[in-house]
Amino acid sequence: MDRIQRVSSWLKQEGHTSAFIHTKENVFYLTGFYTEPHERLMGLFIFQDEEPFFICPGMEAGQARSAGWEHEIIGYADHEDPWALIQTALKKRKITIDTLAVEKDSISLSRAEQLKQAAGGAAFVSAEETLNQFRLVKDQEEIKKLQEAAKLADYGVEIGVSALREGITEMEVLAQIEFELKKKGIQGMSFSTMVLFGEKSGQPHGNPGTAKLKKGDFVLFDLGVILDGYCSDITRTFAYQTISPKQEEIYHTVLKAEKAAIELSKPGVRIGDLDLKARGIIEKAGYGDYFPHRLGHGLGISVHEYPSMSQANDSIIQEGMVYTIEPGIYVPDIGGVRIEDDVLVTEEGATALTRYPKELTILP
Amino acid sequence: MDRIQRVSSWLKQEGHTSAFIHTKENVFYLTGFYTEPHERLMGLFIFQDEEPFFICPGMEAGQARSAGWEHEIIGYADHEDPWALIQTALKKRKITIDTLAVEKDSISLSRAEQLKQAAGGAAFVSAEETLNQFRLVKDQEEIKKLQEAAKLADYGVEIGVSALREGITEMEVLAQIEFELKKKGIQGMSFSTMVLFGEKSGQPHGNPGTAKLKKGDFVLFDLGVILDGYCSDITRTFAYQTISPKQEEIYHTVLKAEKAAIELSKPGVRIGDLDLKARGIIEKAGYGDYFPHRLGHGLGISVHEYPSMSQANDSIIQEGMVYTIEPGIYVPDIGGVRIEDDVLVTEEGATALTRYPKELTILP
Repeated sequence: MDRIQRVSSWLKQEGHTSAFIHTKENVFYLTGFYTEPHERLMGLFIFQDEEPFFICPGMEAGQARSAGWEHEIIGYADHEDPWALIQTALKKRKITIDTLAVEKDSISLSRAEQLKQAAGGAAFVSAEETLNQFRLVKDQEEIKKLQEAAKLADYGVEIGVSALREGITEMEVLAQIEFELKKKGIQGMSFSTMVLFGEKSGQPHGNPGTAKLKKGDFVLFDLGVILDGYCSDITRTFAYQTISPKQEEIYHTVLKAEKAAIELSKPGVRIGDLDLKARGIIEKAGYGDYFPHRLGHGLGISVHEYPSMSQANDSIIQEGMVYTIEPGIYVPDIGGVRIEDDVLVTEEGATALTRYPKELTILP
Repeated sequence: MDRIQRVSSWLKQEGHTSAFIHTKENVFYLTGFYTEPHERLMGLFIFQDEEPFFICPGMEAGQARSAGWEHEIIGYADHEDPWALIQTALKKRKITIDTLAVEKDSISLSRAEQLKQAAGGAAFVSAEETLNQFRLVKDQEEIKKLQEAAKLADYGVEIGVSALREGITEMEVLAQIEFELKKKGIQGMSFSTMVLFGEKSGQPHGNPGTAKLKKGDFVLFDLGVILDGYCSDITRTFAYQTISPKQEEIYHTVLKAEKAAIELSKPGVRIGDLDLKARGIIEKAGYGDYFPHRLGHGLGISVHEYPSMSQANDSIIQEGMVYTIEPGIYVPDIGGVRIEDDVLVTEEGATALTRYPKELTILP
């Protein structure tokens, strides 16, 4: 069943008249067309039985068609009112919209008001949960793209490692990484690249700055790219020139937790158990208070999507899920270690898409 | 009058009970605190007479205080419900909210629904227009920041020019520019950097790719940075090694139009007349059909803000406004020229914050 038909089936099942999908991620998922129209309106109307239609700025209509969208496209010029065109398109289909599923967490109040008017006062229901669930299991084409994106994340770490020298700043290394990745033709980084030295590695959300690399520092890289619409996300931590026994203990604890969670990744397992497994290892080593975040997150068109790899998640792992496993220990005055891989669930178990070596490395 | 008091006065004047401001740009404008809390709730409640309060993730409360916010801060932990805390804070003030001004173009339908509930069923009115108007005229401190950001835009062009060599790709030059700017400690680029060669310069919204530089190409740079919360935006176009008479005519027409619009920039002039002036010059030269966009846009905390420099804008230029002037001519098969400066309106007239030379340059 194609993705549009899947939405139509859901509408029938729930008794909703129509769905209006406007975020670039879900539009890409449903039409194959990736674009960022900024303040201009773009959206996809899907019905139970009628033909869907896609409305977008006129100058993008051709690209939407080339990207593979086979149904109606309504392109509008800047001087036209897209809401009036929507009203006409709905009238043509002779549909009275009772309930309209929209992405409530994203659609602005202004647009919701205009949409309500164009759709004849329809009541809104949320479309997010359903689309998030649809995107949870990846197909072969998506997996291939995620693999390619992961390879470039590995490459980013490689660039970062080779840029290191005493006295270089975090920002300089970061710039070098993004420079080389952009030359590879990525769409962009999937989030703000993190390069953290020494004590700053102990901040789970630290910002790279002008800290200079010195002997004994941890060096933490957290980065990813967007390639062909799909994201990657890797973290590696290194010791620079030397390592203290305490740092070594932290590293080995995180690595053990990370490997154990990957090991446990297979169809049928409760998702929350992965976090509990990794957390248990970290707690047993006495660092439970220094692992303040969930184990990971789903990965796909968005860098954070379903499933949430938190201990509270009672959902079951399925073949085709892709998520990160990224335990960390962050100790004030010493620094932090996080190790993160992108993991694909297969029939037998799990395979990491990110492949950069993760055994403890003391860089020369 | 400080900025918060100005909002309070507006509330009184309009008879609105309160304003809830949540976008990072307006929060920065009103509190001095620049942050991007992503999916976590952040917002500022302002009243007619009561003390305002700022709600944000607990881990950011300290930074908000350091940034200069002197009123109440409600920091919440991830396990707490910020809406319940808002409800309590409103009750403490014994206020019944009738009308609540929100940024309707930005607030999501989900949040609007939760906010309505927390605020006891208040009716929403729009806060955007008022805040856009407040931000229209810049104070001395803002102008200083815009100047610094503009200097780095100049520097970005300088880097781009020095990176050029036959056969280099657009993406390689772009990466070099961003690499050097990031080393200067910018917060980020203010929009996706544009480096376009040859015919691609003829696309007003072209995407840099793997096009290789060759003799006779136009080279168009459009870039800007965010520094201390303020944006810059510059465009320069060069000829590479040689130029045809037609290309030269296009260049000189754009330059003449750009200079004329800056010349006309002074307090008291109708904004739309600047676009008409530049457009008139381009039309007279026979290129009217090849200048498809407005003359420019306001510049400040956002890279596109008020005033819109379109021919339809009947507002009057005021001292302290900062905007771009960026006419362009885009001819298929030949390429395009756009020249853009950031312009500050002073008592006597206008001064360009961007200073990179703009006389026709044929690069060796």
